[in-house]
Amino acid sequence: MINRKAINHRTRVGQERSNRTRLRILDAAMRVFAEKGPDAPVIQDFIAAANMSRGTFYNYFSSIDELLIATSKQLEDDLIVSIQTEIEDMPSPVERMTFGMLLWLEKAAKDPIWCAFVNRVAHHSMMVQTQVTQDLRDGIGSDEFRIPDIDAGYDLVVGTLRQSMNRMLAEKVPSAYPKQVVHTVLQGLGVDAKRIHVLLERAVPEMRRPARTIGRPAAAS
Amino acid sequence: MINRKAINHRTRVGQERSNRTRLRILDAAMRVFAEKGPDAPVIQDFIAAANMSRGTFYNYFSSIDELLIATSKQLEDDLIVSIQTEIEDMPSPVERMTFGMLLWLEKAAKDPIWCAFVNRVAHHSMMVQTQVTQDLRDGIGSDEFRIPDIDAGYDLVVGTLRQSMNRMLAEKVPSAYPKQVVHTVLQGLGVDAKRIHVLLERAVPEMRRPARTIGRPAAAS
Repeated sequence: MINRKAINHRTRVGQERSNRTRLRILDAAMRVFAEKGPDAPVIQDFIAAANMSRGTFYNYFSSIDELLIATSKQLEDDLIVSIQTEIEDMPSPVERMTFGMLLWLEKAAKDPIWCAFVNRVAHHSMMVQTQVTQDLRDGIGSDEFRIPDIDAGYDLVVGTLRQSMNRMLAEKVPSAYPKQVVHTVLQGLGVDAKRIHVLLERAVPEMRRPARTIGRPAAAS
Repeated sequence: MINRKAINHRTRVGQERSNRTRLRILDAAMRVFAEKGPDAPVIQDFIAAANMSRGTFYNYFSSIDELLIATSKQLEDDLIVSIQTEIEDMPSPVERMTFGMLLWLEKAAKDPIWCAFVNRVAHHSMMVQTQVTQDLRDGIGSDEFRIPDIDAGYDLVVGTLRQSMNRMLAEKVPSAYPKQVVHTVLQGLGVDAKRIHVLLERAVPEMRRPARTIGRPAAAS
């Protein structure tokens, strides 16, 4: 007779080990990218930093491009956790969306290496997608967002922020610029003009949980 | 005594020859990318297709990446010429912006190889930038656009369209989607709800001057 409990236990233990190995590789990848930038490393750098065999490594990632994408998503997830800490108690989806976007742009403005790194990757992490989609859905439900379609609203939010990150990397922007971007996006989501004005008068909360950086250690001080 | 007229003539002739050579390389690059896609070609493919010496070629372009960017900008300029043919007689900047965006998205929807090709390059051609900026300026001047800042407005237009092109490449979108995207962008630019409704009820003009494609010849029929 098959002992299902034992098999389930073995499966679970295997799964946990596999997740741990993946995280170990991503931590190593973060260090390698921080030290060498996104273009210079070769696969051997990652294998050496993760301190594992080439075979084990290739069970998880098959190219530097895959590692870049996974590292970028890891960084985005980490920022989302920091942002959620600040916005989760805000009662309205418009408020959460407003300060979520402002905190995101603030990180991008203060940490250009992070900004350049995550903006290389075309698709956002699942946590970013979930957060934006959920806030959009809630705001449509409470009639605070008036948009013809949720996908169009998502593309507006995510596309505008990405483009403004590109601008912040390419030129020096005035300090009012992040709020002007968020103002324009809120208009696009159909938020009432007075409401936008009141929201943007408020101070942006300090992030109590600092988000990770990918900057070179020497530049991080 | 220096004959300035002769020197100016020589300079002008040299300049024209140089422009012609550049265009010849770009035409060849277009054929090579159409046949092999954006990633497969090697420099020798372009030199052979342009039928010139390696030395002459390298006077104009030093990498495939540079050729990709220049080809993409050339394709964008060509579409802008087609779009301008349709919108230049429209009296209001809001109208021009609306149908300009709809014609752009229509090209992207109908020609996915074109869409993928131009969306690889992060910066738009000068003609795209000029057209969008001019229409934004005119619309702010006529008080039809209400945005806190022209750069934020530009990032909204360009960022949202880019993101929606990515979506159209990744999934099948409903036929109403392009108008929903444009609706959301017009809201973001502060256009009056009734005006948006009336504009989006109108038929999108047929492009009388078809824009170039980068599709493989066999797939273009």
